[in-house]
Amino acid sequence: MSRAATLLACDWGTTHLRAWTLGDDGTVLKDRGFPFGVGRLSAGEAPQRLAEVRTALGAQGLPAILCGMVGSNLGWVATPYADLPADAADLAAGLVEVGDPAGRVRIVPGLRTPGFNGAGDVMRGEETQLFGWLAAHPERRTGRQVVCHPGTHTKWMVVEEGRLTAFCTAMTGELFAVLTKYSVLKSEAPAGDVTAFEEGLNAAGAGDALAARLFTARGRLVAGGRAPESASSYLSGLLIGADVATTPALIGIGLAEPVALLGDLELCAHYGRALASRGRGYEIFDGEAAAIAGLHALHHGSLGR
Amino acid sequence: MSRAATLLACDWGTTHLRAWTLGDDGTVLKDRGFPFGVGRLSAGEAPQRLAEVRTALGAQGLPAILCGMVGSNLGWVATPYADLPADAADLAAGLVEVGDPAGRVRIVPGLRTPGFNGAGDVMRGEETQLFGWLAAHPERRTGRQVVCHPGTHTKWMVVEEGRLTAFCTAMTGELFAVLTKYSVLKSEAPAGDVTAFEEGLNAAGAGDALAARLFTARGRLVAGGRAPESASSYLSGLLIGADVATTPALIGIGLAEPVALLGDLELCAHYGRALASRGRGYEIFDGEAAAIAGLHALHHGSLGR
Repeated sequence: MSRAATLLACDWGTTHLRAWTLGDDGTVLKDRGFPFGVGRLSAGEAPQRLAEVRTALGAQGLPAILCGMVGSNLGWVATPYADLPADAADLAAGLVEVGDPAGRVRIVPGLRTPGFNGAGDVMRGEETQLFGWLAAHPERRTGRQVVCHPGTHTKWMVVEEGRLTAFCTAMTGELFAVLTKYSVLKSEAPAGDVTAFEEGLNAAGAGDALAARLFTARGRLVAGGRAPESASSYLSGLLIGADVATTPALIGIGLAEPVALLGDLELCAHYGRALASRGRGYEIFDGEAAAIAGLHALHHGSLGR
Repeated sequence: MSRAATLLACDWGTTHLRAWTLGDDGTVLKDRGFPFGVGRLSAGEAPQRLAEVRTALGAQGLPAILCGMVGSNLGWVATPYADLPADAADLAAGLVEVGDPAGRVRIVPGLRTPGFNGAGDVMRGEETQLFGWLAAHPERRTGRQVVCHPGTHTKWMVVEEGRLTAFCTAMTGELFAVLTKYSVLKSEAPAGDVTAFEEGLNAAGAGDALAARLFTARGRLVAGGRAPESASSYLSGLLIGADVATTPALIGIGLAEPVALLGDLELCAHYGRALASRGRGYEIFDGEAAAIAGLHALHHGSLGR
């Protein structure tokens, strides 16, 4: 096993940067998070911040590969989107090298689709986890796979024979954040009340009429006598339940198809409970490991296709 | 026609207080808005604020009748809710008189229902407009009426033979406010782009999958090249379209039933466009006139039955 770092891999999103140094075989040698997401960068600040990352991880001079919102107009440079359908080779072909005196830096392109209604949909970051996950086992690149990456902007994805053919974004996590922070549903209680979460899953019903179902989170306190501390868990269950009940159908995902949940493990577990409550099969996969595998394979041109 | 003021009538909500002095026949003699909604009051501050209203309108010593959130735990006193079904007599019987040395003050009760899924739903303020509207014409108190009061918390209501038998709240206005202010969809452009509003109405589709449909407001800018200035009108159309498409069915309102839109005239016009785009009939009624009529009739015990 190699002990020498040969790559600096970064998942650089809106709120955080996560960096790893990797050996030739993809082994993680160092791992560190930084608070400077691209949402907090001033124009032109990205190279200086990456230099700090290099210093902190002893990664001076290493080639670097970056995915996430760093490739948007908020980040280092707005890399072009690759259009669907897209496979690993399309992603690799879309890598954008930026000039940086501190070492070779390449940024992973985002992906774009007309979306379920032609309005247009985009992703930046999740594609690297997806193709890292696909690269890990050849059988994932045959047949049809349904993958869900839950988060601020949850992505539902359909993969056919190793090609991403459709995806759809639901603002589930962001709705939870703005409603618990700024609305009449605001609550400082942490989620984690399992009973209230399941009550929320039930309240999601068919997932229709969300603006009305959301107000039940208020009604159950004021008219139903429930404890205010249960509000955020209820809201979480309601939003995730509605997402699971309605978003997949927009891009032709059937009710019987099992779902690979890929991302933050705790959030994946919430989505898993929502899927299970509707009798749907699922399996959970660690998004961080997939991101590392994806960045490593993209760098080495070994994503498979 | 009487020229002497005999009643101080107030609609005292979360953000504003609107006050009128009325003659014996309900004629408005003075009319004034104040910025101290109950959301900004400290505990026990309400009587002092009403004294300021009396001074400003020359209404010292007049009996006063108040509706809205002033009857909540944020306001003067938390008045008990009246339960559905409720008619004008139930509302009148629920008036709560509070002790105030400056004159007789009565507060209209709120209304409560188990709601479409038993979670519980409440209203405070809209009931006064509703019963004021019903009182204005006897034929509204026969047969079945579907009434929608659009707003921060839009209320859909079913009236049968003058009794409110069901209502449901949709957080449509509040979703618009928090999303345009705090989310990735934030926009400082005023609504008013008719084309984008209609694009939003179409994007609401069947009103399902709202968390995903909302993200099309982002996708159409980033991947679809639409002007950022159009974002808030699109979002308004999408949210109102989804509300109109889905909330009524939760309380058994049929697709063919015409809707009486009662409230702010501009907002009613937006809802009217959404209803018309789905081939539904509607008529618009001024909520302010209905509030005045409701408060006047409640005071005089002349709401009808």
